[in-house]
Amino acid sequence: MTVASAAHGLVVALSGGIGGAKLALGLSRILPAEELMIVANTGDDFRHLGLSISPDLDTLTYTLAGLNNPETGWGRRTETWTFMAALRELGGEGWFQLGDGDLAIHVERTRRLAAGEPLSQVTEDFCRRLGVRAKLVPMSDDPVRTRVRTQEGWLDFQDYFVRQRCQPVVLELTFEGRQSARPQTDLMAALRDPRLRAVIICPSNPFISIDPILAVPGLRQALGNSPAPVVAVAPIIGGRAVKGPTAKIMSELGLEVTAAAVARHYGKIIDGYVVDDSDVDQVALPGLHVHAAAILMQTLADREALAHEVMAFADRLRALGKAVRASA
Amino acid sequence: MTVASAAHGLVVALSGGIGGAKLALGLSRILPAEELMIVANTGDDFRHLGLSISPDLDTLTYTLAGLNNPETGWGRRTETWTFMAALRELGGEGWFQLGDGDLAIHVERTRRLAAGEPLSQVTEDFCRRLGVRAKLVPMSDDPVRTRVRTQEGWLDFQDYFVRQRCQPVVLELTFEGRQSARPQTDLMAALRDPRLRAVIICPSNPFISIDPILAVPGLRQALGNSPAPVVAVAPIIGGRAVKGPTAKIMSELGLEVTAAAVARHYGKIIDGYVVDDSDVDQVALPGLHVHAAAILMQTLADREALAHEVMAFADRLRALGKAVRASA
Repeated sequence: MTVASAAHGLVVALSGGIGGAKLALGLSRILPAEELMIVANTGDDFRHLGLSISPDLDTLTYTLAGLNNPETGWGRRTETWTFMAALRELGGEGWFQLGDGDLAIHVERTRRLAAGEPLSQVTEDFCRRLGVRAKLVPMSDDPVRTRVRTQEGWLDFQDYFVRQRCQPVVLELTFEGRQSARPQTDLMAALRDPRLRAVIICPSNPFISIDPILAVPGLRQALGNSPAPVVAVAPIIGGRAVKGPTAKIMSELGLEVTAAAVARHYGKIIDGYVVDDSDVDQVALPGLHVHAAAILMQTLADREALAHEVMAFADRLRALGKAVRASA
Repeated sequence: MTVASAAHGLVVALSGGIGGAKLALGLSRILPAEELMIVANTGDDFRHLGLSISPDLDTLTYTLAGLNNPETGWGRRTETWTFMAALRELGGEGWFQLGDGDLAIHVERTRRLAAGEPLSQVTEDFCRRLGVRAKLVPMSDDPVRTRVRTQEGWLDFQDYFVRQRCQPVVLELTFEGRQSARPQTDLMAALRDPRLRAVIICPSNPFISIDPILAVPGLRQALGNSPAPVVAVAPIIGGRAVKGPTAKIMSELGLEVTAAAVARHYGKIIDGYVVDDSDVDQVALPGLHVHAAAILMQTLADREALAHEVMAFADRLRALGKAVRASA
């Protein structure tokens, strides 16, 4: 195994929206475009107003294209809201905010999907037109839909997440359609590629952003079979989520809100774990290599710096070889 | 027959977009809301970007609601264009202008039609929400699609009208789906209603706005059977169309561009014809009562004044009785 010169090779990054997209952007800025594949969660995709909406895919697309809105974490940077105002006048559903510019990606995607194009092809074309050079793929071209069991019963994900602002207590999550979903073709090829350098699990919500990806049949096995290291970045710092409902969901599911609990949740699937400097003493799990870094990404420089740290750590793990890593 | 007190009763106005909508607005301002039904041409409806677009219905809705753009004649008065800019970036079709606010009516209509609601019910609800008091109905809840034969072959209407800006020479028009289309239910009931006071053919393009309505099976017969007078307003003044391609189409179809030629085109279906003062000497057709008025509508007052003229003329014809009228 020649791993010493592994400063090149293919990197696959699994990501949800906001938090994950920050690291995905960092990776896209330090890696050659042809060496990075970003895999988006599509479990929170849904049909709304007759439109096919892919929130995480769009957040990643906009982030990588420099069009994202840094204030909200979703939607476009320069946006108008005339559509929503007119829709409300007509009695349309107003709980999911769709900016006028953002609407274009939903309308055009819906049209192309209805014409028979796979989601990954539509995504690739949008990325090319918006100047995104890294490859961005949905986890699957087949629909997988995250649903949330709460004390009010089962809810569609966006109903829980947006309409009810994550207020219902989460008892269970399921990913409808996962049994018949096939992992996106290029993703499977990448995971089997001997040039695979690392798989990075971005600091997204493990339950609602990463688990749906891992639920696609064949993906966990492909990660286990790959000689490349799988490295996750903790979405929890000092017992708190940087953004979003991760901490709330963890406590509702009976987990302690710590970086260590996230690592235990990922279990054997990860070889390495990047945690915040402040958390490093608390994360010690058999078989898991831990690397401490400043993982809070506030600036663009933070995103790039963390991407460098993560890749250097992954390359060290890769140099160890999988068998050695597993006995850490 | 008690016709002397016919200052009340139901008025049915057939209309296309811009020109017709002006008179429809005038009628809506001088008649009690419950005594006016405006019938919109839906022959130029089409599916674009996956959306169900009804241009004439929307122009009428916006005009009656006071939301119309008086500069363009289509779309909304206060509008932004962020969607179109973003759509072009994504490689979407940019030849049909969809304003951000206007999009709401297309998206919400498409959603509701897909859920199984008839177009007339969706239209009625939109009108109610936008404060339109007169009843506005599509000519049919079934699709009828105007197509244009040109030297380049058959074109979909909006391809001819918008994408190619009416430049191809028109050889023939057809209304696809007309054979199986049923006239809108309330429209047929109105035409059979003994309280029917008049049917007004608004000054829209006879070939692309009014003919599709008249092509719906049963409509011509219902007009012929009705004791109420049918009165058309000329869309041609002094040999020119006020707006749009009426004159160009007439000459391409081998007709002279005159108000009289339009009356001959309508033939026995009309009992009365309102022409511009300047054209009255040229229109003398057997069986047709002609009334001269100032028919160019520039101001809101012009619209109301013409509506008054048209109704007074129609009431005089009604007092004559149909048999007498036909022998004029």
